[in-house]
Amino acid sequence: MMSRPRILVINPNSNQKVTQGLEDALKPLGFAGGPEIICQSLAEGPFGIESQADVDSVAMPLRKLVESDNSFAAFVIACYSDPGLQVCREGTDRPVFGIAECGVLTALARAETFGVIAIAQRSIPRHMRYLRQMGLTDRLAGERPLNMSVAETASGEGTLAKMIEIGRALRDEDGARAIVMGCAGMARHRRPLEDALRIPVIDPTQAAVTMALGTVQFSAH
Amino acid sequence: MMSRPRILVINPNSNQKVTQGLEDALKPLGFAGGPEIICQSLAEGPFGIESQADVDSVAMPLRKLVESDNSFAAFVIACYSDPGLQVCREGTDRPVFGIAECGVLTALARAETFGVIAIAQRSIPRHMRYLRQMGLTDRLAGERPLNMSVAETASGEGTLAKMIEIGRALRDEDGARAIVMGCAGMARHRRPLEDALRIPVIDPTQAAVTMALGTVQFSAH
Amino acid sequence: MMSRPRILVINPNSNQKVTQGLEDALKPLGFAGGPEIICQSLAEGPFGIESQADVDSVAMPLRKLVESDNSFAAFVIACYSDPGLQVCREGTDRPVFGIAECGVLTALARAETFGVIAIAQRSIPRHMRYLRQMGLTDRLAGERPLNMSVAETASGEGTLAKMIEIGRALRDEDGARAIVMGCAGMARHRRPLEDALRIPVIDPTQAAVTMALGTVQFSAH
Amino acid sequence: MMSRPRILVINPNSNQKVTQGLEDALKPLGFAGGPEIICQSLAEGPFGIESQADVDSVAMPLRKLVESDNSFAAFVIACYSDPGLQVCREGTDRPVFGIAECGVLTALARAETFGVIAIAQRSIPRHMRYLRQMGLTDRLAGERPLNMSVAETASGEGTLAKMIEIGRALRDEDGARAIVMGCAGMARHRRPLEDALRIPVIDPTQAAVTMALGTVQFSAH
Amino acid sequence: MMSRPRILVINPNSNQKVTQGLEDALKPLGFAGGPEIICQSLAEGPFGIESQADVDSVAMPLRKLVESDNSFAAFVIACYSDPGLQVCREGTDRPVFGIAECGVLTALARAETFGVIAIAQRSIPRHMRYLRQMGLTDRLAGERPLNMSVAETASGEGTLAKMIEIGRALRDEDGARAIVMGCAGMARHRRPLEDALRIPVIDPTQAAVTMALGTVQFSAH
Amino acid sequence: MMSRPRILVINPNSNQKVTQGLEDALKPLGFAGGPEIICQSLAEGPFGIESQADVDSVAMPLRKLVESDNSFAAFVIACYSDPGLQVCREGTDRPVFGIAECGVLTALARAETFGVIAIAQRSIPRHMRYLRQMGLTDRLAGERPLNMSVAETASGEGTLAKMIEIGRALRDEDGARAIVMGCAGMARHRRPLEDALRIPVIDPTQAAVTMALGTVQFSAH
Repeated sequence: MMSRPRILVINPNSNQKVTQGLEDALKPLGFAGGPEIICQSLAEGPFGIESQADVDSVAMPLRKLVESDNSFAAFVIACYSDPGLQVCREGTDRPVFGIAECGVLTALARAETFGVIAIAQRSIPRHMRYLRQMGLTDRLAGERPLNMSVAETASGEGTLAKMIEIGRALRDEDGARAIVMGCAGMARHRRPLEDALRIPVIDPTQAAVTMALGTVQFSAH
Repeated sequence: MMSRPRILVINPNSNQKVTQGLEDALKPLGFAGGPEIICQSLAEGPFGIESQADVDSVAMPLRKLVESDNSFAAFVIACYSDPGLQVCREGTDRPVFGIAECGVLTALARAETFGVIAIAQRSIPRHMRYLRQMGLTDRLAGERPLNMSVAETASGEGTLAKMIEIGRALRDEDGARAIVMGCAGMARHRRPLEDALRIPVIDPTQAAVTMALGTVQFSAH
Repeated sequence: MMSRPRILVINPNSNQKVTQGLEDALKPLGFAGGPEIICQSLAEGPFGIESQADVDSVAMPLRKLVESDNSFAAFVIACYSDPGLQVCREGTDRPVFGIAECGVLTALARAETFGVIAIAQRSIPRHMRYLRQMGLTDRLAGERPLNMSVAETASGEGTLAKMIEIGRALRDEDGARAIVMGCAGMARHRRPLEDALRIPVIDPTQAAVTMALGTVQFSAH
Repeated sequence: MMSRPRILVINPNSNQKVTQGLEDALKPLGFAGGPEIICQSLAEGPFGIESQADVDSVAMPLRKLVESDNSFAAFVIACYSDPGLQVCREGTDRPVFGIAECGVLTALARAETFGVIAIAQRSIPRHMRYLRQMGLTDRLAGERPLNMSVAETASGEGTLAKMIEIGRALRDEDGARAIVMGCAGMARHRRPLEDALRIPVIDPTQAAVTMALGTVQFSAH
Repeated sequence: MMSRPRILVINPNSNQKVTQGLEDALKPLGFAGGPEIICQSLAEGPFGIESQADVDSVAMPLRKLVESDNSFAAFVIACYSDPGLQVCREGTDRPVFGIAECGVLTALARAETFGVIAIAQRSIPRHMRYLRQMGLTDRLAGERPLNMSVAETASGEGTLAKMIEIGRALRDEDGARAIVMGCAGMARHRRPLEDALRIPVIDPTQAAVTMALGTVQFSAH
Repeated sequence: MMSRPRILVINPNSNQKVTQGLEDALKPLGFAGGPEIICQSLAEGPFGIESQADVDSVAMPLRKLVESDNSFAAFVIACYSDPGLQVCREGTDRPVFGIAECGVLTALARAETFGVIAIAQRSIPRHMRYLRQMGLTDRLAGERPLNMSVAETASGEGTLAKMIEIGRALRDEDGARAIVMGCAGMARHRRPLEDALRIPVIDPTQAAVTMALGTVQFSAH
């Protein structure tokens, strides 16, 4: 009997609660006959990835992880800065997906323009630089910060209300027709946010794992 | 018992053989617990979509089809010119995916640059115009034609050999690091082409249905 | 005696009042020795073109019209969404001009930047998508809606005052140095609007028919 | 009786033969009831405008000319480098058209992509810089030089044959679907070149004077 | 003994006070063993360069100056509109630097985004056109005017306070992470402005002469 | 007595020969009264930086180095991939320059278009991605590889001949009007290459240290 192909979703921070949140968020893609989706924290990761140093410090550990285990059919790096994406791709012939890239690309498949909800103001220049790098700025409506920490966002009670407020500003003032949640730890707010805004809301990890699943399925059959 | 959500994949031409090819190509996404994927020809469609008139003539029939049946959770328009995509989106609150858009976006999730294999030279200006419309030209390496008809491509014996030749030119002369197959009828050549070129090859219908599947699953749960 | 070449200006909606307005607006180009300019409503057209469905539903009827009569030296499609422009060009070897394209191009010949007055908010994403398609976004200062119907715009009394207000916002807040009137039914307001704003105001139908006239004259002599 | 409005077409070089060529080329726009089109050499101009020094040396003389005579309703600067265009616009409230700008804009109204035939290789970087300045590079297919002097181009016997050769390269190798003749002195070759290439060929002076004529007519009525 | 190479910094206006200001501003690059930096007013220049006519009227005199003296190793044109830059480059094989170009390029070496402080509102369209010409708009955060004359800016008492106010708006509202002072006469405000804003502030003449110095040194050794 | 400000030029690889080459190349900026320029290898660096893993592995060690010593007035990262540039900037309030960024920016101050000589074909996609990130692709003429190792380039005898050959292709086939040497180890070939090509040749380390020197001088005085 052939074993199911496995997709490794790596949370590059060591906050186990975020990893657990990823697992919950990805359950709808856990089909009986489909790929196995495994979420794992990066042991070497900081508790949250908020600075450029956090981003750059996990690149090589991610590469090592990706190189070390030949049993995965695809990898997903679950941090909205796509840390180590290029170096991981260099280190394996398996597909490696970054959630920021996949989140934006998936938003572009749904609507004319997209807006991004960032955790913090300080991440926005990094995200803008990355959008330029990807050549994907033309349909950006805007990016606005929650100004919360990753931890707060994942667990805080007022998070959803704040996300709705920011989402409305992106939609009504900036003209966004889809919203990308700019953090791996916001997934559980996707549906209520979409219900409130009535435009597509993209969880980037879900977007990336969807692409990984398709890639794996079509390679295997 | 809740019924499975259904995704309608519409082949805008009336060539039943192409529709059958889509069904075969999409089998790997047919999970027991997942959405039901239904492929259907557009009755009003021409036998192949090759000219701008072919493209424009199916827009309103596609709209009518999309509006007429409330039972689908998402739609995929399976023609590499994305005919009627905007008008279909206007006519329904369900997500509508175009395979050209999704094919290119998925290629961008896999590699730095992409190349497109078109059926015919005459489609390339239309594709280029559409890439500009989508704001997705920055990472295009090139587009080259097979110079075959849709029918020949779907069934002809020499098709794969010709695709490999064109794919090599896109890879080696134009610098493409992923290939998008620019037609809904090329799906069965995806794997051998990828094996020959050793860079990712994207079937656009598979790419779009993957995105549709993810969208449907995450909306439903 | 050689007959005068004829330019067919097609109003893709069936509102005869708009067609009459086009005729009036184009009189200054009706030279004794020049091309004959004929304005005609599209029988199959809706009363106004406001939605994407309106746009797409007239494409094939426009194509048929363009193909059916060999006696015209050039065609102008007089709707600011340029419906059917590509499919009409495919169907004839005579030049076919779209008023949106010509309106923007003519504004670019007059000033550093341009602003667009749209009829309705909902048209703006469609116009932006089209500007991207044409590769003409670099000098756009902004687009703002009147939020009136096509019919109101053509006949309403308060239209000019509202256009001046919107034009001032485009000029003073967005930095526009020329204004394109984003509708075929605004022509009679061109001069008073230009007098009020003191920057060039472009009526797109006048712009397109001017280009058509030049093309026809230089081909014929 | 109201006098006809007058359009001044300024040949910024002092080669009277080129000015005469402009007059011949513009005859088809000389309507009985229309604006009077007057062609004039710039007394201070060099014999041909080939270098950047030639371009820059005529800017202030052009400004002086434009400021000195209040009797013209519009001006056209008939040199494919659009010398002094901005400074002339600053000096008058009448419209001033540059033939390079109008030539490219008119080509964009005719076809998906355009190619430019330059006189000399050395002009191409200047033209490319100007295209970037205008924000009009997205649909450029290519520019290729004749490598002839302005004088040769205007009068030489082999010019047309060479233009056809270059035009074919732009069309077949670069993908141009319209051709802009990148010099004011090529007008008499427009029709035979178009007949040979079977794609639209734009004479930039004709394009600019057409736009000027429309502007003048619609302002006056 | 080999003489020191000389860099000629040309103030294209005839305001000797501005030239003196340049000399003061450039002292820190006056190394004993390094190039000699000579500042000179353009005799033919207007008292200040504020209009397009001012800009264009100095192009040919600058060219003559650059051509006339073979003793300089490099030239810097010290006006934020880079008048005559191309025509001067054509006239000499020595490097010619424009301060607007060098100011922006140097800002890009320091920060993600830049803002520009212009003297007057009317210069901004000219600067924007030039940024497009240089292909350097992607990282522009914004440009805002002081609305002072060149003379006021150089000597006025309230200038610094006004610059700080405008700089804060560029930083906090537009997102600039470096500031370019858009005039050759603002140099003495660079350090206090940088101290106040706490982001890099670039004096364009200092930027250009720095580049000239490097070029000269590396050519000579 | 105030001590001279110091600029630290970090060679991120541990090849002492390359560091020695940097020292030699930078001598012309070593002015008696100017900043002290200190070149240092990164102890943790690989022998050469050729892969993405090489690039990413030095980012955090560079950050640590930059943070650890408060005595430097500016830093230059001397590798044409600008490893760790953003993370170093985050870690210090002193200016940090990347040689790739400065090399390209300096080329843009010299000529209309630039070409890049890369060491190896595999670096080109990384460089292109970085150019897009910087928003500096508009004036790129092309990039071509030497297909030599870093070590060979620094010391090999045939290097100059090969560089001239590649430089000619960039100039004559791609239209480059300035050349950027895409490696820190090519400096000693700058002058002979420039002599051979007769267009400006930019050594990126010299370009970056020039900018650093100017920044330091103008901050200190």
